Amino acid sequence: MSRKALDYDQINENVKKAQYAVRGELYLRASELQKEGKKIIFTNVGNPHALGQKPLTFPRQVVALCQAPFLLDDPNVGLLFPADAIAKAKLYLSYTSGGLGAYSDSRGLPGIRKEVAEFIGRRDGYPSNPELIYLTDGASKGVMQILQTVIRGNGDGILVPVPQYPLYSAAISLFGGSLVPYYLEENANWGLDIDNLRQSVAEARFKGITVRAMVIINPGNPTGQCLSVDNLKEILRFCHKENLVLLGDEVYQQNVYQDERPFISSRKVLLDMGPPISKELQLVSFHTVSKGFLGECGQRGGYFEMTNIPPESVEEIYKVASISLSPNVPGMIFMGCMVSPPKPGDISYDQYLRESTGILESLRKRAHMMTDGFNSCKNVVCNFTEGAMYSFPQVKLPPKAIEAAKQAGKVPDVFYCLKLLEATGISTVPGSGFGQKEGVFHLRTTILPAEEDMPAIMESFKKFNDAFMDQYEGNSWYSRM
Amino acid sequence: MSRKALDYDQINENVKKAQYAVRGELYLRASELQKEGKKIIFTNVGNPHALGQKPLTFPRQVVALCQAPFLLDDPNVGLLFPADAIAKAKLYLSYTSGGLGAYSDSRGLPGIRKEVAEFIGRRDGYPSNPELIYLTDGASKGVMQILQTVIRGNGDGILVPVPQYPLYSAAISLFGGSLVPYYLEENANWGLDIDNLRQSVAEARFKGITVRAMVIINPGNPTGQCLSVDNLKEILRFCHKENLVLLGDEVYQQNVYQDERPFISSRKVLLDMGPPISKELQLVSFHTVSKGFLGECGQRGGYFEMTNIPPESVEEIYKVASISLSPNVPGMIFMGCMVSPPKPGDISYDQYLRESTGILESLRKRAHMMTDGFNSCKNVVCNFTEGAMYSFPQVKLPPKAIEAAKQAGKVPDVFYCLKLLEATGISTVPGSGFGQKEGVFHLRTTILPAEEDMPAIMESFKKFNDAFMDQYEGNSWYSRM
Repeated sequence: MSRKALDYDQINENVKKAQYAVRGELYLRASELQKEGKKIIFTNVGNPHALGQKPLTFPRQVVALCQAPFLLDDPNVGLLFPADAIAKAKLYLSYTSGGLGAYSDSRGLPGIRKEVAEFIGRRDGYPSNPELIYLTDGASKGVMQILQTVIRGNGDGILVPVPQYPLYSAAISLFGGSLVPYYLEENANWGLDIDNLRQSVAEARFKGITVRAMVIINPGNPTGQCLSVDNLKEILRFCHKENLVLLGDEVYQQNVYQDERPFISSRKVLLDMGPPISKELQLVSFHTVSKGFLGECGQRGGYFEMTNIPPESVEEIYKVASISLSPNVPGMIFMGCMVSPPKPGDISYDQYLRESTGILESLRKRAHMMTDGFNSCKNVVCNFTEGAMYSFPQVKLPPKAIEAAKQAGKVPDVFYCLKLLEATGISTVPGSGFGQKEGVFHLRTTILPAEEDMPAIMESFKKFNDAFMDQYEGNSWYSRM
Repeated sequence: MSRKALDYDQINENVKKAQYAVRGELYLRASELQKEGKKIIFTNVGNPHALGQKPLTFPRQVVALCQAPFLLDDPNVGLLFPADAIAKAKLYLSYTSGGLGAYSDSRGLPGIRKEVAEFIGRRDGYPSNPELIYLTDGASKGVMQILQTVIRGNGDGILVPVPQYPLYSAAISLFGGSLVPYYLEENANWGLDIDNLRQSVAEARFKGITVRAMVIINPGNPTGQCLSVDNLKEILRFCHKENLVLLGDEVYQQNVYQDERPFISSRKVLLDMGPPISKELQLVSFHTVSKGFLGECGQRGGYFEMTNIPPESVEEIYKVASISLSPNVPGMIFMGCMVSPPKPGDISYDQYLRESTGILESLRKRAHMMTDGFNSCKNVVCNFTEGAMYSFPQVKLPPKAIEAAKQAGKVPDVFYCLKLLEATGISTVPGSGFGQKEGVFHLRTTILPAEEDMPAIMESFKKFNDAFMDQYEGNSWYSRM
């Protein structure tokens, strides 16, 4: 029997090695159950609109007008669109040559990159250079492009927090590099311990791995922690000393649910530190329109900003971006609306403010409801979701449950999450998909179900969990589970 | 001096090796000149809207409504949008859970994949399975994903036509594979000679390369040829015999400007051939919303269809697609509108037909104007553009011009194209970016400048070219060039 290039045993091993649990076994099973007619609550992925979050009106008006520029001259356009959306659409169309249907420069529309630079300048208090900002089809594509540029082979290591968002592990596998884990401390509210980081690097080097970059996710996914300025300084010093590029995944910068540690960008902390580090440390920061209060996941808009990357390398990154010609242009319009929203006095300002603060305030409430809900469950402990969109409770599985999982041929947390799914329709991701310490189990849910649905969901979770625990702790042999 | 991971000499060599001339030196110089205020005619990339092609109205109306679903309930919506666009937008929103702002399944919206399958079924006369159709951010992203799946290392070779569209050479470099060239015959109207193909494979094997896949671009880019059924059969038999996956780049299937050889898909020819080949040959076919009469490049909509790929490999391809979560959803709406356009009797049918045939008829005229224009120039010969969007004239450079290029440190065709750009503002791509036989020189232009601008552009080209030839043939020492 001859072998063909796309036979399973013939394809690229790195493709097979890559794992992406957010759309893994649990998601596939949930999709099956949904097809069979079961009601599924998809909390496996941070996809706000899929769980009922309404899009902000203003960016949608602007992009609709950009898609249908013939409306701009229609005498009736004012009946459906406010004047500031019309003006913004005209402005954004003036940034393009040929409207949304033309490829842009492969780095994105210059006009939007300039708006992003102004946003970063206002946020950090240091001007930003649009030439070092590249627009992307969501942040993921940017992360993948930078990892591909850094990774030369399996001797190259990337420091990744554990638990981590599996984009990183998957992309590192795909590009044939080595993931070097550093553990976040659950008992210290998922904080980052520099000694632990040093040890990870030392162990990797002992194995012959050249550690080349470090990923931080701030606010954290799946862990929800917000890094302090002091912690960020330590990280930056560490990267500088060890010659690591820092990849700052800051896609949740608008999603902060406590007031003690507001979001502060890696770039601001770096520039505050002054030379030599501020002139030397290589930093790439990522942002998106998919999270925050826009939540426009399906539009795929993102950017990355490069700090202290030499011009010849910036050129190489441009060249590779150009191979797929151009990110999608409508996503750039969303990015523009996100970084330069309506201002006080604009017609749409009040509505924009009401909608955006409404979403963030509700997410803050939901973060509390969910954390409190988990902590009320038997054998479940959960740090408060300080930021981002996820809850990552630890589930202390009884030995009998672990044994039952083994019998079923499943990793214990997968076993638990599958049972949860079958019993309640709640589609989560097992902690093993993000990495966790040996013998400790978690699950990740988003905090995105609608506020009014949250009590019922948490009740349903608690009912399942407590019965599960009773069953496997042997206290309730007659449980109907 | 310590070395950092994003220093130029430290980055992934495959990134540096990748070349993409369509956005290379010529494009960069043209962008500079444009900034300096020079009028540039960008014919370097098949980007119709950038050169004034108007988008089809109906798909834009549908996507605008999908972006602004709050309009659907507005009593005034009928003043701006026709009823069939409103109905289509409602249908497409019913395919999503959460509208365009929600990630779709990583393979794309099931409802759109079904419409694509129906389109393929009608086109080929054989039903197509939506489960084997994946939507992508333009065809390029699909091509890159499949190449990444096939290529395991530099011992793996991919047969690519020369001249070729440099997406292929660039992606093969990026993924660390080996490009195995097969030459198209300019004297045989860029036809494909199977003996030549056999020889390419034999030579590659002699060098220890495992040839695993073959790319065809039909209609051709940059060469414009349309493959005959007989030629396609030969190719399919060859791939079957040699155990190659066939990658069928069919993005220009709507762009055909002669009646002798209408477009026929590789898949139809394969299925017409019957078993065993129709059950065994592995084929992946690509399509897009960027070309044809939509020309919606900036929207990034595409798909690939897999034929005879084993289910476990299809699953792996799904998993890798899921790492970047979801293609952009608005691009899927364009794909839906492309494969299921208004039907006779629908309100928008007449307008859709008028707009789309208007574009194709004008492109056909422009193909003739351009080919005739080139053939009227000194030392230039050009095959007729049978299909796609490009003209690829051969430019017979005099020895003195080649010598002058060498003095200037330029490849001869780059030298010529740069001079052309400086003199006329016409931004082309040198033939060396696509590959050409040793000592033979070409350039690629699109046939996309507006029909009314074409005579002046061709005149400007001729004036430049003939003076250039006079200068370097030494017949006109007093030329004012």
